[in-house]
Amino acid sequence: MIHPCGTGNYTYLPLGRRVLHKIEQIIRQEMRGIAGHELLTPHTLASQEAAADLCRAQIESYRQLPTLIYQIRTDRRDDYRLRAGLLDAQEFRAQEALSFHPDAHSLNDFYPYLYQAYVNIFHACGLETVAVETEGGNEFIVLCQAGKHTFTLCSECPYAAHAEEAEFARREAPREIERAREKVATPDCKTMAALAIFLGVPLEKTLKVVFYATEEGEVIIATIRGDLDISEAKLKKALNIADLYLATEREIVAVGAVPGYGSAIGVHGAKLIADQSVLLGSNFVAGANEDGYHLLNVNYPRDFQADMVTDIAQARAGYACPRCHHELAETPGIELGYLRRGQETPATYLDQDRKARAVVVGTYGLDLSRLMAAVVEQHHDQQGIVWPVSIAPCQIHLVVLGTDQEVWARAEETYARLGDWGYEVLYDDRNESAGVKFNDADLIGVPVRLTLSHRTLQEDAIEIKLRWQEGRETIGLDALPKELEKLSVR
Amino acid sequence: MIHPCGTGNYTYLPLGRRVLHKIEQIIRQEMRGIAGHELLTPHTLASQEAAADLCRAQIESYRQLPTLIYQIRTDRRDDYRLRAGLLDAQEFRAQEALSFHPDAHSLNDFYPYLYQAYVNIFHACGLETVAVETEGGNEFIVLCQAGKHTFTLCSECPYAAHAEEAEFARREAPREIERAREKVATPDCKTMAALAIFLGVPLEKTLKVVFYATEEGEVIIATIRGDLDISEAKLKKALNIADLYLATEREIVAVGAVPGYGSAIGVHGAKLIADQSVLLGSNFVAGANEDGYHLLNVNYPRDFQADMVTDIAQARAGYACPRCHHELAETPGIELGYLRRGQETPATYLDQDRKARAVVVGTYGLDLSRLMAAVVEQHHDQQGIVWPVSIAPCQIHLVVLGTDQEVWARAEETYARLGDWGYEVLYDDRNESAGVKFNDADLIGVPVRLTLSHRTLQEDAIEIKLRWQEGRETIGLDALPKELEKLSVR
Repeated sequence: MIHPCGTGNYTYLPLGRRVLHKIEQIIRQEMRGIAGHELLTPHTLASQEAAADLCRAQIESYRQLPTLIYQIRTDRRDDYRLRAGLLDAQEFRAQEALSFHPDAHSLNDFYPYLYQAYVNIFHACGLETVAVETEGGNEFIVLCQAGKHTFTLCSECPYAAHAEEAEFARREAPREIERAREKVATPDCKTMAALAIFLGVPLEKTLKVVFYATEEGEVIIATIRGDLDISEAKLKKALNIADLYLATEREIVAVGAVPGYGSAIGVHGAKLIADQSVLLGSNFVAGANEDGYHLLNVNYPRDFQADMVTDIAQARAGYACPRCHHELAETPGIELGYLRRGQETPATYLDQDRKARAVVVGTYGLDLSRLMAAVVEQHHDQQGIVWPVSIAPCQIHLVVLGTDQEVWARAEETYARLGDWGYEVLYDDRNESAGVKFNDADLIGVPVRLTLSHRTLQEDAIEIKLRWQEGRETIGLDALPKELEKLSVR
Repeated sequence: MIHPCGTGNYTYLPLGRRVLHKIEQIIRQEMRGIAGHELLTPHTLASQEAAADLCRAQIESYRQLPTLIYQIRTDRRDDYRLRAGLLDAQEFRAQEALSFHPDAHSLNDFYPYLYQAYVNIFHACGLETVAVETEGGNEFIVLCQAGKHTFTLCSECPYAAHAEEAEFARREAPREIERAREKVATPDCKTMAALAIFLGVPLEKTLKVVFYATEEGEVIIATIRGDLDISEAKLKKALNIADLYLATEREIVAVGAVPGYGSAIGVHGAKLIADQSVLLGSNFVAGANEDGYHLLNVNYPRDFQADMVTDIAQARAGYACPRCHHELAETPGIELGYLRRGQETPATYLDQDRKARAVVVGTYGLDLSRLMAAVVEQHHDQQGIVWPVSIAPCQIHLVVLGTDQEVWARAEETYARLGDWGYEVLYDDRNESAGVKFNDADLIGVPVRLTLSHRTLQEDAIEIKLRWQEGRETIGLDALPKELEKLSVR
């Protein structure tokens, strides 16, 4: 199917190229179904750049919108590090699509069609995928051990997200009457676990803080219930900044906090962010910002007020689904495709009143190389690949056994006929044993195996075996066309 | 069709991409016809490298040979300088093919099949090409003013070659009785023309020399009849060296020659190469290697002997064809494809006696982007492109005119029906005038234009116009399927 060719690169051999062709044709058919126009841009310009350029040059009037363009070509990962074979090759076959719209409303109307087209493509390739929600749209992933990202999925409903972005339903703690704050000595309780054990309270009755600093030196104090952890990804998103560092001891002390015994209470000059969990509970234990002391009965917002209360908690396997409250699970996966609702572009068009307005763009993409590798991951057994009929390199694997001239003549004839009937045939006319030929046929995974031998010739018959079934059957050669028709593999 | 996209690069817009697809399909069909297997190699490795690698990894036994593999992908010219649009884009669509053989005999047997497949491809695309003979095989070129190379073609027979490599039949001079050598004073006769006038002899009665030097400092004295010029390309090929420089005065003097009055007579320490024309004539005038003097009645080989007498003459328009002696012409052209009989490779296979032998390789290539541009060059009129049916982006251009709701409903219906009948239709449903729509249809060049208007609706008819003909015809809508069938554009 493929042949490794330089580090992290692969040549698609004839059978692999055929599979790729079939995947490409499935994509073209689905794109045509939603009026997509295929084009081909040079590699010299980045795809987005080329698209913006094209959009500016070609789109003038609202009458041309909305429109969908796409291309299928070989792309290259610039940030490449050798990883998981074809699942993550440096050069890969990619489909990229762009939809241009007069406004966000039009894009939102169109989005489900593109989404469904991608679902149809995966379905046609026999691939089980998971749709993940992302900020700007969706990703389609396949679950596999070789995947480099972790995803959080609900065990019951379709909810799925990148682990670091996943939401979850926080456990509610019973709301108690707020008691008066009280300072207690907690020597050597620098971790939440040590504190909870020392005081005999569950973790969810404690408040934990993590001190961060921005590149500009601003100190961020993130407060969260002690049974949860901060998701730095969510925190960055909440703050709308790209980088965040753990604060140094000096930075912590400068805002009036004490490392190991810190909290957001009584600090000055820091930005305070609290997770929603601070609202789900009362009479918490929190740091006293005094060495060796904590405070009991801390309540929000009575004892401190955050600049922002939002979701900054890391989801974990076993937590409750934000949609249906069933258990969440974590699993590695790999991205096959993405859909991103776009933004306004610098390109403009003239609306019905001949006013210039910004074109709104949606961007979409599929990795065909990964898709092909994922199909193999999902469709194989101990003997080899079991190709779904839709993208099998051929439909029929014709095997001829022995050295009988008559058998070979019959095989040649059968090969020609199968071609005439419109089947794609892989013809094994090597001088190899039945064992070698059958093993190779199983390895390659063509749906239907037909075998001609001295035995079948005597009965004027042919042996038929389906790759996804155990049994073989011998049928009369006359019955072959009908039998194949029944299988609908063409 | 295409949109310029960065310096020397082009995006294939939807219609252009369709043309490219059709060309690709024609190529695939022809390659299948000679049992070619398609694959796809990564760009990371040079094509030859990838092929050698593949050959080493996949070819083991003589039973696997001969075999033909090919690919169609986007390639990039590394030595790119901005030139003639799509005829010479930096990134271009390329077909590359390799045939592997057990020996040169097998390659020679196979060569004509690949040659014919390329001829068939050009023919199917409606393209007139010229087959040029090259040292290792052939090139296919199209003649066009934008071409960057000059080719020499016979006006009668199919002989064609790169101008600097072209052969020609030298004019024979009547062979005279060799007379005794004689020194004459020829003051101020430093050019051949001045000498011929001064002595009153025709140029073909003179011998001209050009002094060259190799990188290693060896002096080469090339002698040719005075009516001809040296082809440095041929001279280098004869010497089997890549670089050659004009000798300095010091180098000329060092071998005993005199600039302006030089010849190969009496020199020492230089390599002497003579064109075949020194054999076609007698009693030549040549330099005396003495300032202000020439020799009369110089004869080869009586008066000097060259190390090599071969073809080092530059062919010119008007010279005689080496095959049929009709007149040669020169014309600019551009290379579309090449066929190169290969050499032995480092890859080996086991022959029938299980001995390791070198695989012999043939390499072939087509530039699809140039091919497409060349078709446009050869198939256009003042109004625009006139696509050959085989690679037209669509077969039918459906135009709807006016604002009559009924006409538009009929157009939608016709559009759907044409699709059902298996035609590819470009549907112009813009709100533009008949003039704009017809002009655009001519520009795009789809073979059949169908027009629906208020007038045709009243007659329950449709207007049909062929791009390559002047007239229009109105036919009943009922007659449309049969009429289209007759045109066989599908």
